[in-house]
Amino acid sequence: MTRPTPLSGFPEWLPAQRLAEQQVLDRLRRTFELYGFAPLETRAVEPLDQLLRKGETSKEVYTLRRLQAVDGVDDEVSLGLHFDLTVPFARYVLENAGKLQFPFRRYQIQKVWRGEKPQAGRYREFLQADIDIVDRDTLPPHYEAEIPLVIGDALRSLPIPAVRIMVNNRKLCEGFYRGLGLGDPEEILRIVDKLDKIGPSAVAELIIGAGGTEAQAKACLALAEIRSQDASFADAVRALGVEHPLLDEGIAELAAVVETAREHSPGLVEATLKIARGLDYYTGTVYETELVGYEKYGSICSGGRYDNLASAGKDVFPGVGISIGVSRLLGLLFDSDALAVSRPTPTAVLVALWSEEERAGSNRIAAALRARGIATEVAPVPAKLGKQIRYAERRGIPFVWFPASASAEGGDQVKDIRSGEQVAADSGAWNPPAADMAPTLQ
Amino acid sequence: MTRPTPLSGFPEWLPAQRLAEQQVLDRLRRTFELYGFAPLETRAVEPLDQLLRKGETSKEVYTLRRLQAVDGVDDEVSLGLHFDLTVPFARYVLENAGKLQFPFRRYQIQKVWRGEKPQAGRYREFLQADIDIVDRDTLPPHYEAEIPLVIGDALRSLPIPAVRIMVNNRKLCEGFYRGLGLGDPEEILRIVDKLDKIGPSAVAELIIGAGGTEAQAKACLALAEIRSQDASFADAVRALGVEHPLLDEGIAELAAVVETAREHSPGLVEATLKIARGLDYYTGTVYETELVGYEKYGSICSGGRYDNLASAGKDVFPGVGISIGVSRLLGLLFDSDALAVSRPTPTAVLVALWSEEERAGSNRIAAALRARGIATEVAPVPAKLGKQIRYAERRGIPFVWFPASASAEGGDQVKDIRSGEQVAADSGAWNPPAADMAPTLQ
Repeated sequence: MTRPTPLSGFPEWLPAQRLAEQQVLDRLRRTFELYGFAPLETRAVEPLDQLLRKGETSKEVYTLRRLQAVDGVDDEVSLGLHFDLTVPFARYVLENAGKLQFPFRRYQIQKVWRGEKPQAGRYREFLQADIDIVDRDTLPPHYEAEIPLVIGDALRSLPIPAVRIMVNNRKLCEGFYRGLGLGDPEEILRIVDKLDKIGPSAVAELIIGAGGTEAQAKACLALAEIRSQDASFADAVRALGVEHPLLDEGIAELAAVVETAREHSPGLVEATLKIARGLDYYTGTVYETELVGYEKYGSICSGGRYDNLASAGKDVFPGVGISIGVSRLLGLLFDSDALAVSRPTPTAVLVALWSEEERAGSNRIAAALRARGIATEVAPVPAKLGKQIRYAERRGIPFVWFPASASAEGGDQVKDIRSGEQVAADSGAWNPPAADMAPTLQ
Repeated sequence: MTRPTPLSGFPEWLPAQRLAEQQVLDRLRRTFELYGFAPLETRAVEPLDQLLRKGETSKEVYTLRRLQAVDGVDDEVSLGLHFDLTVPFARYVLENAGKLQFPFRRYQIQKVWRGEKPQAGRYREFLQADIDIVDRDTLPPHYEAEIPLVIGDALRSLPIPAVRIMVNNRKLCEGFYRGLGLGDPEEILRIVDKLDKIGPSAVAELIIGAGGTEAQAKACLALAEIRSQDASFADAVRALGVEHPLLDEGIAELAAVVETAREHSPGLVEATLKIARGLDYYTGTVYETELVGYEKYGSICSGGRYDNLASAGKDVFPGVGISIGVSRLLGLLFDSDALAVSRPTPTAVLVALWSEEERAGSNRIAAALRARGIATEVAPVPAKLGKQIRYAERRGIPFVWFPASASAEGGDQVKDIRSGEQVAADSGAWNPPAADMAPTLQ
């Protein structure tokens, strides 16, 4: 075959990057489990009609076909690859409701696929890490306050720049627009969502074009400007003089989210009233997350509350969730050399090999080290010693072990090839420094 | 929407099963890393022409299409979902050869897709855990002996029935058939591969139908009957009186594999000369693995040496690898209740809630416990105490924490709801027994 080339939009990491990714995932998982989220995976495919229920994303769906079926009749339902983890999770909850305990909290770390135009930070295949809490019939609003705590702890467990979780509430916006006398709040929300892209005067024009007055447009823009890291945003909203029961509800819920987060992690969460989120299914709190210093790349972690996504007949499972764009986040950090591992291999020790006949002896040393949790390889060939040391050096393996040779006196020795220090050692007792046991994120 | 139903061939686990799967994967990963295998993932898709290079599996490939492209012209190369992890890995090695250190050892744990007819233990989407070692130009045969040690350690780290790794060598078979005067050794191999399905007399007939004599067919069957857990298989082969240089090479390589494994893990590996493996690309050692007590379900872990899979022009990267069929293995064990976790949630402690006003206090206790690695949830609503305890019981959460109430005297208390034992406790110091920290495999 000819040498293959990368596929645009389908990123693949090198081993060192994958090691970093795995440690990131381990830490996310650890935090999710500390909050009682159970792991879950769903199949990669969903029936196409389920995927197409959302207008916006449906254009991006990859459909599947069995090659075998091309000439004949295919007996299957039409399938597509999932484009997020929320739609499959909602389907899973409905399908398995009788076997789950509610409220049900799960995390899910999987690839998703979207056939959109590849560009910086936009992939066709990418990894997401989601948490969601769903309940039967009703979902208490305190879960909307818990989600940012989990995400804050998870992201702050990583050696990455600080994050800022920006929070808003759909009820607050809808109540405000209704109290203002605007007839189609969803339309206004979609317009305000464009604020960062097109600027305030263009937003005002669109609101007026949608039937609003100049004063209404101005009020909408004033609302979108409000931000605070405590409940003081409420005073700023009240000062705009608009009243509506839904507005009150939204303000109270948003205040609880911000204040709960402020006690737990000061500076993490900010009420940011311009946040709208494109997706239709959010009905309460919505979240977006900026990585400080990388704001222009957009949100790395988004979500919100959805009341009607998982429902079948009388069964309704309202939920709230958030999704970390892992590939997007790591792509940004790798591109700017802001995240790496201490070495590109798990191996801590290379056991040298004097001759092919002595391989069994080198294997025994490796087995003794592994039995005590020390990642160990045996040299591939009985090359000259310098070559074996260079083998370790090129891979970032910190220690080379010299077995006692039948032909020389003295016992086993181990060399730290960074410092050159060499000491007598027993494979049943020696340990590397804790920092050298495994590659670490840095 | 109507209540969704499962898709045949696309298994999904319940949370307790996924917890078990994750712990299985953690242990496999741990062993792979102890042997110096670096983690890797490849994209789920490959260009269709690459996937179709193998005749047999190509019928099972799922092809992909962007829904958007249906009415217009699609600008992409034709893509399909990978059906194993070896073909993508070979492509990855060729694509990134300049950035890798050889010999290169990696593990890869990912879903693969095959559009074959679903049946017991055969899925359309399933998880594989692969290890491979590739080198540039040549690959020393001792790696063929190392692979079973890794897999033996990995599988024996799990609370599952014993495994038997059955090993053969393609050179041994080909050399034997050639020494016997048979002209098309690949054809004979394909026939012998059917031995367990169709029996010896049908195999003999097929060999005769392929141009062999009765004596040759008898010799092939005699070879296929040989098995031993040490190098004594060699004597049994020699006793058949066939000679060929390739036969000698194969015997020596197989003897090294069996003897290396015998020193490391007596009883793990058996030279089993009927093992052929269907795939064309194997050129040396081949492996299949039986789960003792589940032999009729076939191999749960297979692989072999391939010399020509990864090659482009003058660059050749021979390799050896093996693949654990994780979904297949777990499906068998789940179906026979042979593998489970101690509880279906990560949560060790439920913090009770006296009133919604006191939620912040319960949150602080939860945060203190989590800070010390104890997975903790706060009760969803301030229900009656009995109801909060039943909430924990239904989920298998072993401990319920009672915060000191503003309205009652005394400090915090924690109750083991299995024994009923309740003690005074400080959220900054109390620890559950180690066995209750996390769900464990059993």
